[in-house]
Parts: sequence; structure tokens; C-alpha cells
Amino acid sequence: MAQDDSIYYRQGLPVPETPEPGRDAGFWETTDIVGKRVARVDGYERLSGAAVYPSDIKLPNMIYGAILRCPHPHARVKKLNTAPARKMPGVRALISGDAPESGGLQWKYDDYAAPLFDPHCRFEGEVLAAVAADTRYQAWDAVRAIKVEYEVLPYVSDHDQALDDKAPRVHESGNLVGSDEYIRGDADKGLSRADAVVEQTYQTPCELHTPMELHGCVANWDGDRLTIWESSQGVYAVQSRISEVLEMPLSKVRVIGHYMGGGFGSKLQPGKYTVLAALLARKAARPVKMILTREETYLCVGNRPANTMRLKAGARKDGTLTGLDFACTGPSGAYPAGGTSLVDWQIRDLYQCDNVRCSSRDVYIHAGPARPFRAPGHPQGSWALEQMMDDLAEKIGMDPVELRLKNIPEVSQARGNIPYTTTGLRQCIEKGAEQFGWKAAVKKAREHNRSNRAVKRGVGMGACVWIVGGGGPPATVAIKLFRDGSVNLNMGASDIGTGTKTVMALVAAEELGIRPEVIQIEHADTGTTQYATPSGGSKTVPTESPTVRNAAIDVKRQVLEMAAEDLDVPAADLVYQGAEVVSGSNSEKRIRVTEVSRLKKRGVVMGVGYRGPNPEGKSVNPFGAQFCELEVNIGTGEVSILRFLGAHDSGRVLDRLTYDNQVFGGIVMGIGLGLTEFRQLDAKQTGKLCNRNWHDYKLPTALDVPADMVSLPIEIDDPEANNTGAKGLGEPVTIPTAAAIANALYMATSVRFTRAPVNPIEIRRHL
Amino acid sequence: MAQDDSIYYRQGLPVPETPEPGRDAGFWETTDIVGKRVARVDGYERLSGAAVYPSDIKLPNMIYGAILRCPHPHARVKKLNTAPARKMPGVRALISGDAPESGGLQWKYDDYAAPLFDPHCRFEGEVLAAVAADTRYQAWDAVRAIKVEYEVLPYVSDHDQALDDKAPRVHESGNLVGSDEYIRGDADKGLSRADAVVEQTYQTPCELHTPMELHGCVANWDGDRLTIWESSQGVYAVQSRISEVLEMPLSKVRVIGHYMGGGFGSKLQPGKYTVLAALLARKAARPVKMILTREETYLCVGNRPANTMRLKAGARKDGTLTGLDFACTGPSGAYPAGGTSLVDWQIRDLYQCDNVRCSSRDVYIHAGPARPFRAPGHPQGSWALEQMMDDLAEKIGMDPVELRLKNIPEVSQARGNIPYTTTGLRQCIEKGAEQFGWKAAVKKAREHNRSNRAVKRGVGMGACVWIVGGGGPPATVAIKLFRDGSVNLNMGASDIGTGTKTVMALVAAEELGIRPEVIQIEHADTGTTQYATPSGGSKTVPTESPTVRNAAIDVKRQVLEMAAEDLDVPAADLVYQGAEVVSGSNSEKRIRVTEVSRLKKRGVVMGVGYRGPNPEGKSVNPFGAQFCELEVNIGTGEVSILRFLGAHDSGRVLDRLTYDNQVFGGIVMGIGLGLTEFRQLDAKQTGKLCNRNWHDYKLPTALDVPADMVSLPIEIDDPEANNTGAKGLGEPVTIPTAAAIANALYMATSVRFTRAPVNPIEIRRHL
Repeated sequence: MAQDDSIYYRQGLPVPETPEPGRDAGFWETTDIVGKRVARVDGYERLSGAAVYPSDIKLPNMIYGAILRCPHPHARVKKLNTAPARKMPGVRALISGDAPESGGLQWKYDDYAAPLFDPHCRFEGEVLAAVAADTRYQAWDAVRAIKVEYEVLPYVSDHDQALDDKAPRVHESGNLVGSDEYIRGDADKGLSRADAVVEQTYQTPCELHTPMELHGCVANWDGDRLTIWESSQGVYAVQSRISEVLEMPLSKVRVIGHYMGGGFGSKLQPGKYTVLAALLARKAARPVKMILTREETYLCVGNRPANTMRLKAGARKDGTLTGLDFACTGPSGAYPAGGTSLVDWQIRDLYQCDNVRCSSRDVYIHAGPARPFRAPGHPQGSWALEQMMDDLAEKIGMDPVELRLKNIPEVSQARGNIPYTTTGLRQCIEKGAEQFGWKAAVKKAREHNRSNRAVKRGVGMGACVWIVGGGGPPATVAIKLFRDGSVNLNMGASDIGTGTKTVMALVAAEELGIRPEVIQIEHADTGTTQYATPSGGSKTVPTESPTVRNAAIDVKRQVLEMAAEDLDVPAADLVYQGAEVVSGSNSEKRIRVTEVSRLKKRGVVMGVGYRGPNPEGKSVNPFGAQFCELEVNIGTGEVSILRFLGAHDSGRVLDRLTYDNQVFGGIVMGIGLGLTEFRQLDAKQTGKLCNRNWHDYKLPTALDVPADMVSLPIEIDDPEANNTGAKGLGEPVTIPTAAAIANALYMATSVRFTRAPVNPIEIRRHL
Repeated sequence: MAQDDSIYYRQGLPVPETPEPGRDAGFWETTDIVGKRVARVDGYERLSGAAVYPSDIKLPNMIYGAILRCPHPHARVKKLNTAPARKMPGVRALISGDAPESGGLQWKYDDYAAPLFDPHCRFEGEVLAAVAADTRYQAWDAVRAIKVEYEVLPYVSDHDQALDDKAPRVHESGNLVGSDEYIRGDADKGLSRADAVVEQTYQTPCELHTPMELHGCVANWDGDRLTIWESSQGVYAVQSRISEVLEMPLSKVRVIGHYMGGGFGSKLQPGKYTVLAALLARKAARPVKMILTREETYLCVGNRPANTMRLKAGARKDGTLTGLDFACTGPSGAYPAGGTSLVDWQIRDLYQCDNVRCSSRDVYIHAGPARPFRAPGHPQGSWALEQMMDDLAEKIGMDPVELRLKNIPEVSQARGNIPYTTTGLRQCIEKGAEQFGWKAAVKKAREHNRSNRAVKRGVGMGACVWIVGGGGPPATVAIKLFRDGSVNLNMGASDIGTGTKTVMALVAAEELGIRPEVIQIEHADTGTTQYATPSGGSKTVPTESPTVRNAAIDVKRQVLEMAAEDLDVPAADLVYQGAEVVSGSNSEKRIRVTEVSRLKKRGVVMGVGYRGPNPEGKSVNPFGAQFCELEVNIGTGEVSILRFLGAHDSGRVLDRLTYDNQVFGGIVMGIGLGLTEFRQLDAKQTGKLCNRNWHDYKLPTALDVPADMVSLPIEIDDPEANNTGAKGLGEPVTIPTAAAIANALYMATSVRFTRAPVNPIEIRRHL
């Protein structure tokens, strides 16, 4: 073994004392390696192609699955003839609603249980049968050989029309999934006291999840045990769902995640495809690989629902918000799936306002069900609120930055006025505006617009709060310290591309004083790793980083106890000092960690860390503000974003490199919402999806993204949040982007673009 | 999930109270499922072919390795020309001593460090180069294309000749590896006081390890991390050795064991082939599969060394042993490897005797180094001692069973007379003889022999003690209880075919009251499982079973703490009762385990168990006695074993089915030593191995094994040994077999066969 000191990066520097056993670790006052720019620990694997994603899995005798999906948004299956498909070459297994394998199996949407194979198809892409064959092509050929007779039924595609009496019903109970109302103070009264009132209707598009890696899995049975390699954000969530659907003990469903190519919320849960793969694998007694096509993912793995929002807001001349009245409609799709979830949160909680009313109506339409999409609801609400703040500012003649600073809340109003552990909203706006050069940029843009008629310029901003982001229990992490000082870190959390492995290696390295390179991470495997909730809600870092730290501290505690035997001093007198354990009272009493007798004999010390509780009566939330400068070609409607700055308060930065990349990635996704992305259903003719691929569904490309993007972390010590002081970052960074762009577009064009995305067609429509 | 009660096998029956946190579990007084005949938990996988052994591993882009080995027992490489091999089709990597990849790498035999590629070859099969190519055949073709010029040197094959002055030297220091002497009392004086003295020279053959699965591995690199799938008895031992040879941090070497097809001691460590696979994989940037041929394993993965033993023993007329004088010579092979290890242990410690002298000389010969072979040294010593006990019995006119019972020790004399926790030697002999019908069988055989001249009959017995078998720390086990009551058990120990997984599932099932079927086991993986020492020394069950139990108890403790919150009673008042947690003081206060709020919320409870210390000042050892009845065809020399009985004291039987199978397997292996197996070196002409395959190296087959084999467990409560009361079984069961056969042969033929194996040639030589 490499027993030399090179494992330790912290040669001879003292580290903070280890806390008492059983107590939670204290807050990190200072750090050595945490917060630095450290490249990903798995960068080599990712870049070299050595990293094995579920789509890369190859097992001996593996065969391939394909799914027959209903081509109509609403239809009833009259006849399903699978006989021709069964005779196709290479076919090893076929399942459909009639087959005994699927008899009675159910699939749940929220609490709504539907048959796994439902002959009443309520959206284009509904599952009717599945085939496994020796090759992908044979599987698809067999799927095409299945003969189906449909009774095609009338459909409704538009959520604004879904509640019309004449609209076709998605479910017998009607098209209202549910409605919700939130009231604080008296919005009408508040608005009546305002000096300025504005009212507007805003629309955001349905966005489709487009992770680089397609949804899918490989399923394999060993006797009564099912192993699934799933492209997933949370292996335990997949395990739980699959064990429920297949009525198996949890221990017998092993789900392995490891590398995965993005999910953005759509991979928090498995899909029907996962169950189909498992059933086909059992029937064929072969491993089955089931990777969806991009078209299939666009039809059935979720979306950010389109929303129609009416917002009325009032302010006094001094900028004080007096009332907010918000109403929202949005579609869950064909099954309950949160069509208006969290859309009103920005309105409820971002700015100080005593009088707020938010109402929402979630409706069914004949389209694929929604799923959480990075910061669910928030960018939509932000699109409305942050544009209206600018409208109000204009109406009362105040700078938009000033108006926002005027309304910084001290507490979480929507949570009964409980305080935040920390709130950096003011600093995000102030320091962001300062570094962006807000005032100068506004001035410069106005000057530019006076002299240039073809290309107009604008600057705009938006702020945000994210509803959660403090993480919390449960989480368990185990760390094995080998006798040469190297470390194995075992956690259940997925690294969904955000750098979780890298960040956690830094946390363990910081606490143990070792180089992150000698930490090997095992993660995201229900069979072999510890428990973690899915990576979503921007909670992975604030949940797992304190847990990793606690596990590392548990390792240190045990090593100190062992070293105490060698040095014949109480463990409490000992501290970790780089590669050595040293007595605090007599620095001549010291021993190298790798020489500690019991560690050498045991071979390994294992420490376990649990995530401690969150602070009671306080809320842990990240905040942010983004600033945008852009140009619009009035002739073509083309928008060029010149620069973007994201100032985010997400507590302590653990790895600056992945932190900045999150900020940049969130902005890019926000540009998609603001300028390019929308799901187009052929509402009039067929109800079918029009843009079914990367050509027709417009994601922002490198040409749409500014070269000048700045990440400005607003770091505020947050010892109450948790022992590392980190808060979530992944979602807040995409909340205010689109609204900031819209505000800049307003400055450039004097047109208030209320309907996203503001693509050249939309711009030309107004100009 | 399957949340029904079917997970629990123990419906409503009370279970013992959970011990206080932090304390070790008390001794199991009674058990419900432990001790039953339970089929292997992985039986389906093993029988269906679903089980993946290292030789079954297939990785994308995997290539195959082959090794160039020296064909001479002693030679110096004058010239090694690899150029022709590099041009052979399919070759992806080639390494030899000259290559920078191997520069300075060393391989250690005990403390003797030799170059990984040593141009001075001291045994047939020494490694000279290795190739990886697209197919096995291409790899072998390339190996054959390497041109080598050897200076062939004189060799010594026979350990009895190795110390002659004229014998060629294996090492410059001479051919003596080392010598050892053990003295207790005064052997000469003791012998002089005897009424009867016998002296004899015994010889045992060199046996070759012949596990079903060949030795080998698959090696794969991900950046700086090496993963090895090795057919191994101990993944952490492989990790340690490989990290040492390749100078890598332990965390960066992941070794996976899982299924393996037997080792018998030869897979306690990796081989040079493991390092070669790793080096080739790194060079080719591809996974490399390196599975040895049977011929290669016979040359280089170890053996049970041949031994020449002189034993002189004396007894008084009443049977009291007065002195034992033992001398042994044996070969380590070409490098230090314990050529006489533990051969004298039976003489030192099996029977009460105040005057014992044992001396041993371990010598070098030009042949592959020895390795531990099931009960190292013990069957050899038993071959001498147990035959001599029969000779003594004859000489003083006493029944062999009686003579042995006369000399049962109360303490471990070789350990300074410390007591055993329990010793069942007397019961093994008495109850074994009783169930075997010893006296009647002796009488019947003698009668038979008077009337039948062609086929003679004999009965014989042998007893044994195994030097260790109590297990001990370190060991760590983690158990995850899922919220539906099913369980994941994580341990580092290998299941070397003995049923470790089954036994540990029973232990966890017993403690948690659940059906073993819902326990999923993860094991033998340095990356993802807990720490365990290699499976050898018959210590896996006594080491791991208490550890598993402690982990299960840790789970229960946590569940009780959680249930206490729901029931609002102190955790100390609660007991596990099947699927429920119930208050001891108020049986109406009860909650289903699956309904415990915090468990439901957490999803998983993880318990950790450590192996507690062994009792101080006491020795934990298994004992046994075996009884054999056989027939010999005087004309052909053919031996038919009619029946065998093994009476073994290995403490509590955890699974009766795998227990019995161990007994039967040990007897079969002992039959090999006694009757069929020996390594034949061509000592006169070439020094090369003559029997290089399963045709020429004679393992016992089904025809050599009696249909009538009986396992008689001698179960004695052993609460001091550990909390399950189990002692080792795997090795004692093969110790006395060969001697029992020899004793039966003596009764049948009146010839004392001192040289094993007693095959028809040997028999015809004497008759």
C-alpha cells in the first residue's frame, strides 16, 4: 500500500477538535479544501467514456425491449392482436394487458391507481404492450406487427379549455383535478390602498424534460431477486415504487444508479417502462434493456406544465407592496400530477406583502402527465411576479432594483412568519446589481436605444426564493478508513450530473485531512449503499454533506480511541493533525494514523453518519438574483443575450467549480423557458405532439448562451442550517432567468411580452 | 411492497429480549430456525447457472490474458525475445521483465521478496511474460511465439534429498528454509518409562489444490481505480496484496468475490496472475480476463507439501501415553511457504502426554511453492499419530477406542495448559463409536476375514483437534431493515462454497424473526461491503455469525427506540414479537414493525455489528472422531469404503444441511489423501510435473465415496466461545479421515501402510 504521506494534503496543520461521541458536529468555521475550485473526482471516467451509464450496460444474453404506445390522445382499444408479433424473428417475450404476468398490476399517479395496461388511453404514448427481442430492431419490428383496433375519441389539449362544459372529459369525474386557495390578509383591501395597481395575464409554455441521457433501464432477475440499472435521481425511490407495483419485498429489488445523464425531476421515479422491463426479463429469463427513444420521453416521462396566470399587484408610491392577487390554471395532463404545483410560491413568499390571495385550478387534458421539472412552478410564478414588479416600478417611477430592496421580507410569511436561518436576498440584489453595474448598464442601454433603431438593447433582473433547499433527514453515510489512510465513502445519493460525488469527497477530505483523490465513492445502489432520498429539491448537498461530515467524524472518533491505547492517554486529549494523531497536552505523544495498532489489526475502521434534524421553528432557504443584458434585432426578432450574472445565496460554497457550473446551467435552462422551448400539441386536428425531436423542440444551443456569464456566490455563515452551512443551489438558479430576460426585452422594445417563450415569431407578432 | 405478515416466520411467538445498547448479545439459549435443515439461500442461482463466478464475467471490450511460464524446474533466462509475439494477431498488450510497467515490481513469498518477473526460474511454471489478446487462442498463440533461451540448471525434487551436500541449491543460502523445535517435558525419559514403544516413519504425498473453479480474475481500470473480480477466499486479503505490489492506495483497489468455486486454502491470496491481469489491463486500456488452465494451477497455485515423519511413541500397559518424539521434514517448494507448518499439532495437543518433542525441517525444492491446504499440516500429523495410536493399542492389547479415551486432555497442553471453553473429544469418540457400532463392526470384520480370503474387511478410526476454529475479531456486519420488514445483510466474508450466506441469513432471520427468504445478502466486495478476514482456518462461521447477530440486535434496538415514540413507553419496556413490537408491561401497547413512524419516514434502519473479543485465557477448538469400514480386494489391491461416520464437536449447528455436507466433503477429501492423490514429479529425468490434469491426478470420484456416510454432530453449549456458540467445522472434518482408513486397512490386511496414498499399486507392493 501507499503508506506514505502523500495521502494527506494537510501536512502538520492542526484541524479542529473532534466533537464528543454521540453529538452532532459543530459548524465548520473555516475550511482548507472545501470551497476551492476542484475538478470532478469522476472527470476521467466521464470524459474517457469509461463511466458506465445505464444505457451503456451490457449483460451476457441481454435482449432489448420496445413498447407499443397508443398513437391517439384519447382512444379506447377495441381489439389487440399480438399473435403476429409473437411470430416475428428474435422475439423472446411479449406482454400486454391480457397476459397473466400483468394481471391486476397497477400503476399509480399520485393516489390515482390505474391498470398498468389501460385499454382506455388518455394520452398519446399510453402503454399497450411490450416486446423483448434479440435486437432493438427486432423488438421494434415486433411492436409494429401488433394489430390494434382503436375507437378514437374526442380530446382536449388546452388547459384553458379543459373546464368548458363542451370539452371532452378526460376522466368521468370531470376535468378538474383539484383547486387550491391561499389567503393572507385581504388582497382586495390591500390593492384598494395602493397608489398604483397593475394587472396582467401571463402564460408559460409546457416544457419537456430533455436530459442528455434518455430514460430507461436494464432489468435482470436472479431467482426471486430483481436488479435494475436505472437512469435515476433516486435509487431508493425506484426500489420503493417497483416493489409496490410488483408486490415484492424491498430487499429483493436492487436498484443501481451510478452514472446518469441528467433528469431535472423526470427521473425522480421510475416509469412504466421500468416495470415492463422487469416483467419482460422475468418472462424471457434474460436481462432486458429498455431505453426509450427521445420521442417516447417527450410523450410520457413528464413535463413542466403550461400555466396561465393572472396577477394583480398594488404598491404605494414609496414602493411598499400593498396587495397581490394571483390566479393560476395549469394541466396535470391525463392523470393527477401537480399541474399548478408551487406556481404561486414566489407570490406568497418572495416579497414582504401583508395581503395575498393565490388560487389555482389544476385540470386534466389529453396529454402525458406532468412531473417535477427543475424548481417546479417557481419559474412560472417568477415569470409573472418579476415582470409585474418591473411594471409597478415603472408606474411609480422607481428603479426596479430599488423596488425589490424596499420589499425584502425578514421572515417566511407563507410559513406563519417563522424566521429564515439566514436570508441573503438583499445581498444578492445589492451585490449582484453592483457587480453587474446595473445603473451604468441601464443608462448605457437607454442611450444605445436612442441612437440605434435596428438593434435595441435592454437590461433586466429578477430575484427569487426557493421553497425548500435546506435538505434534512433521513440520510445515512458510511465511511471506511483503510489502514493506509485511504478512504471508501458509501452513500445512497445519486450524482445527477451536479457533482455530488466531488462535493462529498471534498467534505470527507476536509474532515479527515486527506487528499480527495484517495477517496473512492460507492453510491446510488439500494443493495450496497446507505439510504438516501432522491436527488431533487436542491436538497442533496445540504442533506448529504453534513451526513458525510458526521460519518468522517465518527471515523476520527474511533481512530482517536484506538490511538489512545497506543499512546496511553485519554482519547479526549488527542487531535487529528494531518497524518498523525497528537496529544493536545504533550505534543511528543504522537502516532501516525497508519501505525495505530488496532487500525492495522482491524484493517478497516467504519464510521457511520446520520443527518441531524433541521432547526425547529426556522426555515432554511436559498435566495438569488439574476441580471441580464441583451440585444434584440427589431427586424428579425432575434435576441442575443450579451451577459448574465447570477448572485445566489446558497450558504457555504463547497466546490466552487461545480457551484459556478450549476449557476451557469440554471441560467441556460432559464433561457430555454424565456426564449426557445415549448411543447406544441396539434390541438385542432389530432391532439398529437408536433415537436417530437431535438430538431423541432428548440433547446438553447451554445449560440443562444452568452459567453459572459458570472457567478457571484453570496456566502453567509449559516450554522443553524446544518454543520457544513450549505444550502441548495440546483433549482434557484433557474427561477428568475426568464423573467429577467423579459424585463430586459421590455426595456429594449417597450413591449411587455407576457407569453413565453419569446421567440422571434412572438417578437415579430408584437413589433 | 409486500407488507403482509408473510415476511415473518415467527407469528406471535415471543422472542428473547434485546440486550441493552452497547452490550454484546448474550448467548442464544434456544433457537427457532437456526439448526434446522435449510437449503441454500443461493441454491437457485447456483443450480440455474444464474450465479456469476469470476470465470463467467463478461465485460464490454474484454480481452484475454495468457502467461508464458518457464518449462524447467530450474533455469536461467538468457534471452527473451517478445518481438514475434507483439506482431501476432489480436495482441493488445504484452509485459515481461524488461517492460517499464513491471520495473521493480516485487512479489512476496512470506517475507521473501522476489522480482515479479525473475529471470532465475526456480520452479516449473515460473512467470516470464504475459500477453493480452482479443481471444484466448490469440493470447496463447502469442505466448507461444515468444522466443526464450534458457540455461537449464540442475534441480532437486525430493525434500528428503534437498539437504544433501550434493543437492543443487534452490537459493544461494542453501536449501534449509528453517527448522523448529517444540519440547514439553522430556520425551526420552517418558519413552524410557513406557511398557511399550513403537517407532515408525510415515510419508504423506504432495496434494494439489483442485477446486472446481480454476484460479483467475478479471481486472478492469477506471482511471486510477482498479477493480478485480477474483475467485477468492478473501477479498480484503487480495486488495491488500495487490495494493502493496502495485503501490496503490487501498481505496483504489476494489476486489469483488461473490460466487467462487472452491479454494481450500489456495485462494486465500491472489497470485502473480492477478497482478499480471491488472498490468495488462492498464496497458491495453481494456478489461482483461485471466483464468489459469488446470495445468497452470497444478504448477503454481500451491499444494499440501509432502511430509516425511518419524514418530516414536510409548505407553504404559494401562494406556497412559508416556512420550511422543516426532520429527518431520517437508518442502516449502522454491520459496518459503510453510513446508512443515502445523504438521506436529496433533502430536502436541490431541492427547494427554507430558513428554513431547517435535522437530521439523522445512526445505526448498525446485517446485511450485506450497500454500495452506484445508487443515494445513493436520492430516499429515494425524496420518502418523493416529496410526501409531492403533499400533500402541495393539501392542498393549487394548481397543483403539479405549486407548484414545484413556488420553483425553482437559486443557490445551501446547498452549501452556489453558482450558478449552468446551471439549467434545470424549463425546465424539464415545458417541461416534456407539452410533457406528464399533465393537460389533470390529467383531464382524474379524469374522469376515477368517472366512473370506479374496476380499478382506477392516474398521478403523481416528480422532482430531483443530488448532484454531474459534474465529475472532475483527469483523463488521451491517444490516439494513427496510420499512416493509425485509432485510439487506452486508458482510465482507466470502462464501467459498460452504454455505456462509445461508448460515448468516439464518442467524439474521433468527434474531429478527423473519423468513430467511426475505434477506438479501451483499458480500465479499471491498468497495461496498463490510470488513472481513479471509475465509480460512474454519473461522468464518464463528467469526461472522456473532457479528451478524450483533448487527441484527443493533437494528432491533433502533426499532424499539423508534417504536417507543409511537407507543409512548420506554424502549426498555418493549420486545420484538414476530411482526410486532409489544410492551412487556402492557401487551395492549403494540405496533407493527412496518407501522413504526420513524422507520416509515426514514425508509431504512441500519444496524452495525462488530465481532466481540474471544475469551481470555481460554482456547476455542473443534474436535472430532471418524470411523470407517472398508473392504480390500487382495488380488487387485482395490479398496471399497463401505461406510464412514464423522462425529464432530463444532459447537452449535447453525444449518444442519450445510453442516452435514461439510462433514461429507471433508471425508471425501480425506479419502483422496488416504487412497488416491499425489503429485508426481519426474525427479530423475526432468524434474517436471507428470500428472498435469484430472486424468492423471487422481481425485476421489463418486465411485470412491461410500453411499453410507453419517454426520453426527456433538453439540455442546459453548457460551464462552461466542454468542451463537458455533465453532469451525470445515477443516477438522478432513483431519482424521486418511488415518482412519489406514487403520481399517491394517485390520483388513495386517499391513501397516505408512505411505499415503494407499492406492492399488501400494497395496500390491505389500501383499
